[in-house]
Amino acid sequence: MNLDIRYDFNRRKRIGLRETVWGEDKNIDQLRRITKNLLENKELVFITRINLEKSKALLEIYPDAKFYNDANCIIIGQNPDQFVTQKKVAIISGGTSDLNVSLEAKIALDIYGIYSETFIDVGVAGIHRLFDVIDEINKFDILIVCAGMEGALPTVVGGLFSQPIIAVPVSVGYGVSKNGIAAMHSMLSSCSPGITVMNIDNGYGAAMAALRILKNFSN
Amino acid sequence: MNLDIRYDFNRRKRIGLRETVWGEDKNIDQLRRITKNLLENKELVFITRINLEKSKALLEIYPDAKFYNDANCIIIGQNPDQFVTQKKVAIISGGTSDLNVSLEAKIALDIYGIYSETFIDVGVAGIHRLFDVIDEINKFDILIVCAGMEGALPTVVGGLFSQPIIAVPVSVGYGVSKNGIAAMHSMLSSCSPGITVMNIDNGYGAAMAALRILKNFSN
Amino acid sequence: MNLDIRYDFNRRKRIGLRETVWGEDKNIDQLRRITKNLLENKELVFITRINLEKSKALLEIYPDAKFYNDANCIIIGQNPDQFVTQKKVAIISGGTSDLNVSLEAKIALDIYGIYSETFIDVGVAGIHRLFDVIDEINKFDILIVCAGMEGALPTVVGGLFSQPIIAVPVSVGYGVSKNGIAAMHSMLSSCSPGITVMNIDNGYGAAMAALRILKNFSN
Amino acid sequence: MNLDIRYDFNRRKRIGLRETVWGEDKNIDQLRRITKNLLENKELVFITRINLEKSKALLEIYPDAKFYNDANCIIIGQNPDQFVTQKKVAIISGGTSDLNVSLEAKIALDIYGIYSETFIDVGVAGIHRLFDVIDEINKFDILIVCAGMEGALPTVVGGLFSQPIIAVPVSVGYGVSKNGIAAMHSMLSSCSPGITVMNIDNGYGAAMAALRILKNFSN
Amino acid sequence: MNLDIRYDFNRRKRIGLRETVWGEDKNIDQLRRITKNLLENKELVFITRINLEKSKALLEIYPDAKFYNDANCIIIGQNPDQFVTQKKVAIISGGTSDLNVSLEAKIALDIYGIYSETFIDVGVAGIHRLFDVIDEINKFDILIVCAGMEGALPTVVGGLFSQPIIAVPVSVGYGVSKNGIAAMHSMLSSCSPGITVMNIDNGYGAAMAALRILKNFSN
Amino acid sequence: MNLDIRYDFNRRKRIGLRETVWGEDKNIDQLRRITKNLLENKELVFITRINLEKSKALLEIYPDAKFYNDANCIIIGQNPDQFVTQKKVAIISGGTSDLNVSLEAKIALDIYGIYSETFIDVGVAGIHRLFDVIDEINKFDILIVCAGMEGALPTVVGGLFSQPIIAVPVSVGYGVSKNGIAAMHSMLSSCSPGITVMNIDNGYGAAMAALRILKNFSN
Amino acid sequence: MNLDIRYDFNRRKRIGLRETVWGEDKNIDQLRRITKNLLENKELVFITRINLEKSKALLEIYPDAKFYNDANCIIIGQNPDQFVTQKKVAIISGGTSDLNVSLEAKIALDIYGIYSETFIDVGVAGIHRLFDVIDEINKFDILIVCAGMEGALPTVVGGLFSQPIIAVPVSVGYGVSKNGIAAMHSMLSSCSPGITVMNIDNGYGAAMAALRILKNFSN
Amino acid sequence: MNLDIRYDFNRRKRIGLRETVWGEDKNIDQLRRITKNLLENKELVFITRINLEKSKALLEIYPDAKFYNDANCIIIGQNPDQFVTQKKVAIISGGTSDLNVSLEAKIALDIYGIYSETFIDVGVAGIHRLFDVIDEINKFDILIVCAGMEGALPTVVGGLFSQPIIAVPVSVGYGVSKNGIAAMHSMLSSCSPGITVMNIDNGYGAAMAALRILKNFSN
Repeated sequence: MNLDIRYDFNRRKRIGLRETVWGEDKNIDQLRRITKNLLENKELVFITRINLEKSKALLEIYPDAKFYNDANCIIIGQNPDQFVTQKKVAIISGGTSDLNVSLEAKIALDIYGIYSETFIDVGVAGIHRLFDVIDEINKFDILIVCAGMEGALPTVVGGLFSQPIIAVPVSVGYGVSKNGIAAMHSMLSSCSPGITVMNIDNGYGAAMAALRILKNFSN
Repeated sequence: MNLDIRYDFNRRKRIGLRETVWGEDKNIDQLRRITKNLLENKELVFITRINLEKSKALLEIYPDAKFYNDANCIIIGQNPDQFVTQKKVAIISGGTSDLNVSLEAKIALDIYGIYSETFIDVGVAGIHRLFDVIDEINKFDILIVCAGMEGALPTVVGGLFSQPIIAVPVSVGYGVSKNGIAAMHSMLSSCSPGITVMNIDNGYGAAMAALRILKNFSN
Repeated sequence: MNLDIRYDFNRRKRIGLRETVWGEDKNIDQLRRITKNLLENKELVFITRINLEKSKALLEIYPDAKFYNDANCIIIGQNPDQFVTQKKVAIISGGTSDLNVSLEAKIALDIYGIYSETFIDVGVAGIHRLFDVIDEINKFDILIVCAGMEGALPTVVGGLFSQPIIAVPVSVGYGVSKNGIAAMHSMLSSCSPGITVMNIDNGYGAAMAALRILKNFSN
Repeated sequence: MNLDIRYDFNRRKRIGLRETVWGEDKNIDQLRRITKNLLENKELVFITRINLEKSKALLEIYPDAKFYNDANCIIIGQNPDQFVTQKKVAIISGGTSDLNVSLEAKIALDIYGIYSETFIDVGVAGIHRLFDVIDEINKFDILIVCAGMEGALPTVVGGLFSQPIIAVPVSVGYGVSKNGIAAMHSMLSSCSPGITVMNIDNGYGAAMAALRILKNFSN
Repeated sequence: MNLDIRYDFNRRKRIGLRETVWGEDKNIDQLRRITKNLLENKELVFITRINLEKSKALLEIYPDAKFYNDANCIIIGQNPDQFVTQKKVAIISGGTSDLNVSLEAKIALDIYGIYSETFIDVGVAGIHRLFDVIDEINKFDILIVCAGMEGALPTVVGGLFSQPIIAVPVSVGYGVSKNGIAAMHSMLSSCSPGITVMNIDNGYGAAMAALRILKNFSN
Repeated sequence: MNLDIRYDFNRRKRIGLRETVWGEDKNIDQLRRITKNLLENKELVFITRINLEKSKALLEIYPDAKFYNDANCIIIGQNPDQFVTQKKVAIISGGTSDLNVSLEAKIALDIYGIYSETFIDVGVAGIHRLFDVIDEINKFDILIVCAGMEGALPTVVGGLFSQPIIAVPVSVGYGVSKNGIAAMHSMLSSCSPGITVMNIDNGYGAAMAALRILKNFSN
Repeated sequence: MNLDIRYDFNRRKRIGLRETVWGEDKNIDQLRRITKNLLENKELVFITRINLEKSKALLEIYPDAKFYNDANCIIIGQNPDQFVTQKKVAIISGGTSDLNVSLEAKIALDIYGIYSETFIDVGVAGIHRLFDVIDEINKFDILIVCAGMEGALPTVVGGLFSQPIIAVPVSVGYGVSKNGIAAMHSMLSSCSPGITVMNIDNGYGAAMAALRILKNFSN
Repeated sequence: MNLDIRYDFNRRKRIGLRETVWGEDKNIDQLRRITKNLLENKELVFITRINLEKSKALLEIYPDAKFYNDANCIIIGQNPDQFVTQKKVAIISGGTSDLNVSLEAKIALDIYGIYSETFIDVGVAGIHRLFDVIDEINKFDILIVCAGMEGALPTVVGGLFSQPIIAVPVSVGYGVSKNGIAAMHSMLSSCSPGITVMNIDNGYGAAMAALRILKNFSN
């Protein structure tokens, strides 16, 4: 059978983003072959949604690989052309449980050389915690806001800050908020203007959305 | 056919609440017969979700009836045993569009002699409007919070106030928030502790929930 | 990375409730750090939705911790300011399978010093069992009603009792009632007036809703 | 085009039930042609879900036709072979708003010569109303139970009575119970044993289910 | 805590059905206590949805217990008052995968002394298999029809047979039919008249619905 | 504003299908401009889902236009290159209510010169009607099967016939089958092998799927 | 009653966006009062989702108001502080039916002085139309992409262009795509990286998201 | 109990397709009995959705069986009457993660002697990869298109190619696209004309749909 992988090597030229490998639905064999193929083409390997077991299989072959357990990501190799900008991204999140999504976003930005900082546990139920860091957050140029449960954080952030806001619903919760859909609907129907939304748990996508802004507007 | 209505006249004795008539799925004939029956039994008639056309049919027969256009309610007759309490209820709402639900709650409380006040347009997108009235709201004993769209208001209120909170999702919005379910899910999964939730648009039910507290705890 | 936890220590002052830790989406490391931080701040640690394995990790460090297996909760330390009231809460439930949710509510009330009693297995299919305990239940001031399957119990209770009713849908069932949504919808659309509803399985939230009433109305 | 209708004239022979015409999605022309065709074949015409306007078009041609406004049904002609039985059916319903579904069931039974009686407004919120008629209902052999809102009535009936129970969810309600699905789920997941369920608003189908029992078990 | 179980011992007197124990959401301790309690009261113990592991715990104590692996049921003790009838029930099913639901129904009928027979693998895709057994099926008085996937079998059966039909959707399938809801919706909206429907996988309930007919109509 | 329409004139060259105009969400102005533009380019105008009112506006300008009221389609002009084939398509449907979808498919085939015939009212509840026309249907080369309600017809057809089957769910029904989703899910999960499915009410799409087969396989 | 509107006049200062009035759920009286209040405060009035009838009521009072019929918007007064930027926005849409959402976005940008252009009818089914305008689109700095039906356009755009992409699902379609949710899910799960999504039909929100980028990155 | 399996041995004669065994919901015992029965009747055994463990149980008995790990299929025995045709099928897929569904289709075609080729990783985000193989794909007669995530690939393919297209949604993704429903809805509402759709992950069904075309049109 013709199972050759057609990696989109031209994406970098075309839109300035390299292809990332989605690890969840691939088995170890597939991940090994893709990694080998990418490294031979001098491409950085960045795999998201990869668990510990699959990562170990790659770490055996590539001991320099870096596995981020909290973010379920692995990085193998170097990104040849880093992006230089003074702009920076704040990653704001409502609770400790949203951490892995926040970190996936942070690592994805790191790869491209974007500086970012995380603001964890500034949820809406204790809104004073958010107010305490308003000045600090205002030093950042793009806000990625992660929240599970009722997903109200981006709405409050949207009413307080003027920066571009990329909201990421997180699949943290139970009952009606179990899978993150309640948070996602909350963000999409926010009464704060101009809030954009990613798929549930898509920290990586939020980083890429930020990168699109930075690539086109930083120089 | 045996179409006699078995109105629950004993409910008042049993649980201290009189039965309210749900107008939406009843035709004019049915409403006329129920009204006549209730008045003959010295019961106040309170019909919710009744439109202008049906109301006119009743106003022709009972010119003293009082129709509330904004709240889609009609009241005919007097409530014989009003309830006396110093406690009062604040009805907080995020936008002008939530008005009819807020008013349904207010009118239902009025019938039982409960004092209430409305705080309209204190939505989350401009959270300073809510902060401006914190002291004022703290004078009230129960908070009914109505919100459509993303339904974040009860969560913020729940983090700022210690009173019992009865949240009412409102079917105001479009796309994913069109029918109020997004707001309802948001309220049910609130990360603020102890927020109770009613069915969508159920302002009347929120008033009855408040009444249950006041009846059992005011004396 | 800046992963410092911003625990909402002021919540107790602000609304009289201390923050509870949601254990389900936190790993052992996170739970250890949060526990240490809370105890250093003289706060009681109350973790819900924690499984046996995570609990053991904490019990090794804090042998005085108390793990409730049936309720999936752990308590570490003491609540410094108990709340004193003569009022008491009945926790009514339709079946043995709802037990863990009922117990989560009971334990959360215990922490604040609220007296409560459970009435298990008084489901609607054998309604006489509920009628047998009417007088007993009428000695309580707030009713928390837990039910899975078709969730009809709060409706029947709401027609028989005048107290505030906090309904908790339970994720017990199969087919259309598998995840508790059928029970939740049943409770939200109850034809008994003034029934308030919590998220599915949210026994803790029901206790906090009761506490909000007791805090504001007991003295 | 070949638009000839292939009416299932043999159904009566095959399973003892004649075909009923579903009026909602048919236009006046189609209804006229079907009616003419049926009468020419000496078949009774029974059309459900037909509105006033369509009915008028048929009444002009067949002045002896009988239109039931409350049930949205029309009957033209006579049923040649009535069914003789001493057994009878009780149609129990929670509220006046369920009336049209209850009546559709009653009329469908009438056509086959089955005696039935309606028990309206014996809803669960005032459960004593149901208890008042227990002995009366026990004189009936099959119970059709119609309910909208939270749909709890069949569960309570199922715990009190031993007869076959055919539950019909009704699309009466608002918010989560607007379209009858909450009531249907409630009935399907009833904790009372042996309750069978029809599609939402399907009073006619409930009558046919009763007829299947009576046909096979009455002699 | 007051965790005494209030088993509905009067149900047998009231509606002629004894209470069955739902095993899925109960732990071994709870099952042990319920079993002991029931046997002390001379009641047959019938537990559905019990897995092998829980069953073993009971088999150790009650070696005479009978565990049905294919149906996930266990029976302990004897049913004192069997029901005598010449009527019998056919359990028809579309595929081998529906077997466990069909068997749950069969065992539940066995307990009450009702004779039944299974017709497996007579699915709609090869409709001639059903036609081959028409005469055989016509010797039965009630038809329980189990089907997963698209759930078309009860519709075809309903067009061919005049007996009472109790349809049971089965959670067999994938994609849109994974959890049995597609089959359930198909059965509820069947264009064959008078088909009644149970919750997904509720073989036990179907047996109880048949029993309600037989109890009331057999003598 | 630049509102010029970019009609896909090359589609005919590229894939042999001309673009059809979807009338439902376009206003009269837009339809007028599109029609004028197409006719100037010697293209046949075929508009689906167009109501009587919009059609009249076009008929005033183009009196030779042909409006099909039952199918909600309008045709203006001639299709220059008809397709010649001996193959023919059967359009099978379960009830008179499915007629408009069946006709939309038939008209779309007519435009390309494909011969088709409709078989109406051969639904599953009276399966003998289908058996009566087996030989007749076997003279056709492709089967388009339209069904609403429980959507079982394609499954039965799929078990009896070997031709390509294109199933079209129809939004005829009520309760759980109101919008055609139950029928669609039933068709997608059919246990008959090789049944392909279109979107709800998409008679036009079914015709185009048939055309794709005929274009590539007829010569 | 206290029905004073608390317009968020400080939003402009706080986040640089003025509040827009949502017209759909407000009646004429409410719109009149809000308009009067805003104009007295020297604020531009911009009302979205307003129909012809409500607009006429305002045009009578404010004859200089400008009503956009295709976009269901009205503008009254002038925006005092226009925003100056060389950056411009392309609004790309798949079909003529998406026009009103595209225009809502365009008008909202106009108010703030942002230059934008629309690219209509460049849908995915005829992908060459999109390829024809690649160079033209590359002159724009932000891409708003509107699409109904299957919502594939943003995915293709995302693979071809490097700019920030704000995708707007449109409620154009039928069957499974009737209300825009299929398009929204398609956009959220796009395999093109960094696509952000708005609520269904939220053209205004997309403009505000673009404005957030331009405000923070243009100087 | 009568648990004899009624395998549809006549299906081959009736519609030219042999019955395939669905392995997911059958236990090892059932699979063993079915296999034995089929082989005794000289039928090829083809089991889909069978996991490694169940396969091993069969491989022990039938060491010549061929298990396809990537496709979760097992084949035992030979297909006696292969089908001869010059026509061939292309199986196009968007990503490596869709591989198992693509392979299930390929193996099912192999059994009947149909030649097919797979085109993996030609997803929409990098559309140039698809354009590179246009000429190659045009040599094939039927296109099976598998895609997960947003499922846009069939729409793009449908705009570029004139062959019959059978789209298979794949349950690859997360958040809103987790279970393949977003991809399925996307395919069903495609704006490319004439795309037919299978159930989620139903590679086997797609092969059978192709076979129906080839059987009827190849000679």
